[in-house]
Amino acid sequence: MRAGLLTAIREVQPGEVPDPVPGPRDALVAVRSVGVCGSDVHYYLRGCIGSQVVKEFPFVLGHEAAGEVVSVGSEVQRVRPGDRVAIEPGIPCGACEPCVTGWYNLCRHMRYLGTPPVHGAYCEYLAVPEPFAHPLPPELSFEDGAMVEILAIGVYAADLGEVRPGQTVAVLGGGSVGLVTLQSALAAGAGPTFVTEPLAPRRQAALRSGATAAFDPRSQDVVAAILDATGGRGVDMAFEAAGAVESHQQLADVVRPGGIVVLIGSCADDLVPLPLASFRRKGLTVKFLRRFCHTYPRAIELARTGKVDLRLLVTHRYPLAALGDAFRLVEEYADGVIKAVVAP
Amino acid sequence: MRAGLLTAIREVQPGEVPDPVPGPRDALVAVRSVGVCGSDVHYYLRGCIGSQVVKEFPFVLGHEAAGEVVSVGSEVQRVRPGDRVAIEPGIPCGACEPCVTGWYNLCRHMRYLGTPPVHGAYCEYLAVPEPFAHPLPPELSFEDGAMVEILAIGVYAADLGEVRPGQTVAVLGGGSVGLVTLQSALAAGAGPTFVTEPLAPRRQAALRSGATAAFDPRSQDVVAAILDATGGRGVDMAFEAAGAVESHQQLADVVRPGGIVVLIGSCADDLVPLPLASFRRKGLTVKFLRRFCHTYPRAIELARTGKVDLRLLVTHRYPLAALGDAFRLVEEYADGVIKAVVAP
Amino acid sequence: MRAGLLTAIREVQPGEVPDPVPGPRDALVAVRSVGVCGSDVHYYLRGCIGSQVVKEFPFVLGHEAAGEVVSVGSEVQRVRPGDRVAIEPGIPCGACEPCVTGWYNLCRHMRYLGTPPVHGAYCEYLAVPEPFAHPLPPELSFEDGAMVEILAIGVYAADLGEVRPGQTVAVLGGGSVGLVTLQSALAAGAGPTFVTEPLAPRRQAALRSGATAAFDPRSQDVVAAILDATGGRGVDMAFEAAGAVESHQQLADVVRPGGIVVLIGSCADDLVPLPLASFRRKGLTVKFLRRFCHTYPRAIELARTGKVDLRLLVTHRYPLAALGDAFRLVEEYADGVIKAVVAP
Amino acid sequence: MRAGLLTAIREVQPGEVPDPVPGPRDALVAVRSVGVCGSDVHYYLRGCIGSQVVKEFPFVLGHEAAGEVVSVGSEVQRVRPGDRVAIEPGIPCGACEPCVTGWYNLCRHMRYLGTPPVHGAYCEYLAVPEPFAHPLPPELSFEDGAMVEILAIGVYAADLGEVRPGQTVAVLGGGSVGLVTLQSALAAGAGPTFVTEPLAPRRQAALRSGATAAFDPRSQDVVAAILDATGGRGVDMAFEAAGAVESHQQLADVVRPGGIVVLIGSCADDLVPLPLASFRRKGLTVKFLRRFCHTYPRAIELARTGKVDLRLLVTHRYPLAALGDAFRLVEEYADGVIKAVVAP
Repeated sequence: MRAGLLTAIREVQPGEVPDPVPGPRDALVAVRSVGVCGSDVHYYLRGCIGSQVVKEFPFVLGHEAAGEVVSVGSEVQRVRPGDRVAIEPGIPCGACEPCVTGWYNLCRHMRYLGTPPVHGAYCEYLAVPEPFAHPLPPELSFEDGAMVEILAIGVYAADLGEVRPGQTVAVLGGGSVGLVTLQSALAAGAGPTFVTEPLAPRRQAALRSGATAAFDPRSQDVVAAILDATGGRGVDMAFEAAGAVESHQQLADVVRPGGIVVLIGSCADDLVPLPLASFRRKGLTVKFLRRFCHTYPRAIELARTGKVDLRLLVTHRYPLAALGDAFRLVEEYADGVIKAVVAP
Repeated sequence: MRAGLLTAIREVQPGEVPDPVPGPRDALVAVRSVGVCGSDVHYYLRGCIGSQVVKEFPFVLGHEAAGEVVSVGSEVQRVRPGDRVAIEPGIPCGACEPCVTGWYNLCRHMRYLGTPPVHGAYCEYLAVPEPFAHPLPPELSFEDGAMVEILAIGVYAADLGEVRPGQTVAVLGGGSVGLVTLQSALAAGAGPTFVTEPLAPRRQAALRSGATAAFDPRSQDVVAAILDATGGRGVDMAFEAAGAVESHQQLADVVRPGGIVVLIGSCADDLVPLPLASFRRKGLTVKFLRRFCHTYPRAIELARTGKVDLRLLVTHRYPLAALGDAFRLVEEYADGVIKAVVAP
Repeated sequence: MRAGLLTAIREVQPGEVPDPVPGPRDALVAVRSVGVCGSDVHYYLRGCIGSQVVKEFPFVLGHEAAGEVVSVGSEVQRVRPGDRVAIEPGIPCGACEPCVTGWYNLCRHMRYLGTPPVHGAYCEYLAVPEPFAHPLPPELSFEDGAMVEILAIGVYAADLGEVRPGQTVAVLGGGSVGLVTLQSALAAGAGPTFVTEPLAPRRQAALRSGATAAFDPRSQDVVAAILDATGGRGVDMAFEAAGAVESHQQLADVVRPGGIVVLIGSCADDLVPLPLASFRRKGLTVKFLRRFCHTYPRAIELARTGKVDLRLLVTHRYPLAALGDAFRLVEEYADGVIKAVVAP
Repeated sequence: MRAGLLTAIREVQPGEVPDPVPGPRDALVAVRSVGVCGSDVHYYLRGCIGSQVVKEFPFVLGHEAAGEVVSVGSEVQRVRPGDRVAIEPGIPCGACEPCVTGWYNLCRHMRYLGTPPVHGAYCEYLAVPEPFAHPLPPELSFEDGAMVEILAIGVYAADLGEVRPGQTVAVLGGGSVGLVTLQSALAAGAGPTFVTEPLAPRRQAALRSGATAAFDPRSQDVVAAILDATGGRGVDMAFEAAGAVESHQQLADVVRPGGIVVLIGSCADDLVPLPLASFRRKGLTVKFLRRFCHTYPRAIELARTGKVDLRLLVTHRYPLAALGDAFRLVEEYADGVIKAVVAP
């Protein structure tokens, strides 16, 4: 089958890979839409993320995918050929301690699409274990289905943040993860919500998503702005979705005493200097988000009923053959890109 | 000042009572709107609720109130004359164990408007300690402000239910408490929501509030209907807001294993027979709601931003002098009444 | 192999059943000790518990077991022949919603030893899936290992009760489940602890386990006694381990406002009349315990280090051939029995 | 009255200060024992802790105190002259948001003994608001009563860590705070417990407190040691009680996926470099401890019943006149000091 191949660092080109061989509990899915994630671009630029290294080229990236079921294995019951599905990209082992205690996102033996050595979704077909092929309702397109992956992160972030109706929220970083976190917090009833983001198109998307205000850290003191907007109290919970050292250092200042901080974004730095005394003085709780956990079905429900708006995310579309162009666009934050998608 | 007086069981008439004498930390509030609560009518009909007995007539009932600040004591800082405020009706002692641990709703020495021996809100003026006079934003009317009391219950119920975006919810009972619980659950992002209620106008209000379906227990098997609507799984959380033995007995059947049940409504019976084996088999958690706790400001925020719609509640309006008529209307569930309000 | 057979209601006799056929992931365990549970006796007396009915005789009961590994399947890794193991009796499906969210105790397809139609542990050999064969440390005997099943309930009860060091606890019912709940609460640091129990030997066992006081409901007002012992405040959490209507009705009175109630015991009655107004007035949380969940290893650790004392439980011992005698002893609460065990 | 005065940085000498003037709700307490805290020594050495600066000399430090009630104000009810009491050193305002929601440790207007500008406990008498004068049972000495302050931190740390019976715990740092945290975790039923500490007398105290093992970070790789001791899994929760950058950086490596980290110790550095990717990969929750909250009574109960052993802490005793010697001893970690106390 056709695939978009990472043939070397900074080299992407169309090519062929073997067809997947689905097992008795798998659905064979024809991929229709795949989102380009910052992590894909990171692999493209460096060949690795931390200790996860592409050791053999060509490699197939991609993990934000949706498609149409072509055939199903003999033991598949819920899903049928012709079904449109969002594909949950991480397949946990089901047997380790995190798995049996319900935290499969922390599985010690996870196989994750597009994470070495597991090939990913920039291709024509995927074999997907049935529980990870989530049916899409008619209200949602394949493109929406691809975006469910990122929304599942936002919903999980809002869960970790324990957002309750009427509470105040800050989201530091207005890229696609920041936007779905914002939308998920709003779906959870968040009252005043504040986003900080240097890129104007993303601030606009935040405001269109329902943010009360979006502040530009390049032109103003965002900590002062958030404190000002909350009468000096600070927000109930803050989400770091920028992966920037600066925003990590702002968290303790924008949250109220006893508040919750959720760390979503990954910093490039191995060691991130944090003002721990500020966190301690306020008795904060900090939760680190790892992937998502049981949130795919709820994400689909929120998208189906319009409580979130995934269509704000996708700004650019490419055929599979132009995957390299998509990577370069995202690499450069060019042309107001929030999210680019690829159609095989 | 003028007041609506309970002069004996089943006797209400206009009369005069002494003006309140506000202290240095109180705001003197001119009452503009008061909701008629089922508990008011219960006192009207029987002179008591459980061990709380009206021992001295005439007595002034009423606790769902909003009004305008007329003057403030010397130590009042946040509230000013002319401010429009929702009045939180229970004044906790601030010193008992529940109070100092943050659960003032469980205060052992609560003074509650319209609960013997504390006179209530069916009158012209109330002296309100500053922290319990919650400023109303311009978007909300006095009538909305009166309804905030009941919404504060709904918001607290949704808190106890730990409703998260996309989860499924059942509300048994579609009176005013059921409706604000439904609206609060929806504000918290509830996905499919189901209401059971015998009165058609209330089912219609539930649907207008956003319920997925409203079932009539007089004409159908509501347990079967909810199970059917959830593919046999049951809902994530169920709220009892009818105060009926029958709906209490349905709770364990409509909730999924491991789900949460919130009991809001009061049964008339001293002992309510419950199918405990069904609760145990599913490993349920049951939370009993007592009043509300820290939810007034968030309720006001939700009403201000339109995330809930208090205007669905008020169906009838009376002058203070016609308080008895309001009581009789509510007593008889007449004329499609959901909530009647009285304007002093 | 030999087994103790339930051949009809109220009829137990020794007999033969086919040997178990272990699969590649199973350990074959030679059973060395099995505790007699009240539920075994219930099946013996009535042939059913609720909707679970013995449809085919002879049937093998028994689910509190420990033994020695005889052989292991080809895929077994952690357990080896000669290992001494406590046998966790419930094998969940691993695929339903409760299982994948970590609550395998609520599995919709649980296969449980000695629960129809699954034969139980009153026999010579059992085939046990590896994760459910928990290695016993040298400090623990086979008899201790059998008692781990019941301790796993106590530990789970203390988890549900959220017992913290220095808090006050009441356990209503001092049978074996009440005693392990008490011991688990003490292991969690419970301060003053109170047990109510009509049988003197069980009250003595409670006191030897560390209870501050043990009250006899036949000779004193246990609610008054507990309130008196806590200065009128009530306990932080109460556990119902008697399965009696009376103790269920005492729960709300012995707990402080905002406290936690854990329901462990099963009432014979389909409908249990509860004073819901008392629960509501105190804003209580009630948790229903279903089996146990992830507590076997921790129970073994507590027993190993002497933080609990399982040897207080076993008062009577029988060979497998005398299973009927054991059942009759437990049926009659004779001879100060707390727990009888059978050795195949 | 006599007091130990900080007259300048690094200058302590005996002197006189005005007697306290107790109000109607205060107990006047004759101080009998005061513990020397690292924070006292920090003020002694630098005149400040972060933004809290001694602006006016002489200043009275000290906040770990117990004593005997000499007289009580007219509104005091529970405490009487002659009572022996542990003195909770922080008096919250009772009106700010943290206070009314039950988190008085985060009070925005806290008055704390020995924290500028509030004079402390190195003196003869203190006026203590009744709720903060906690009666000591006969089992506890004044010295024990002084140590209750630090134990209240340990109990709160174990609360934040959500320690449950049989779980595994690491405490990084074996000074007095580390030791009471260890003891509190053990009181909560912790199974295997590991302490890391460079000073031998403290490791010995940890082992005498019940730690499974105590590792010396100067002579071994403590991360490897803890992983080895837990079969590679890591501990369920880790407590940082050393205030060292190095131990902060070890936390994520010693905890299991999904575990809890509690930060107790204060680092001298404004910015502490943390390996956030390691925290994120394991999906950890990090809780920052601020003072203590509602734990004094439970700490007293644990000490009374011997579930913790405060007597392991106090290694040196001084009269008030020798306060400077006590400060220098603690400053230099001399003579195996764990905790020095001063008797006025």
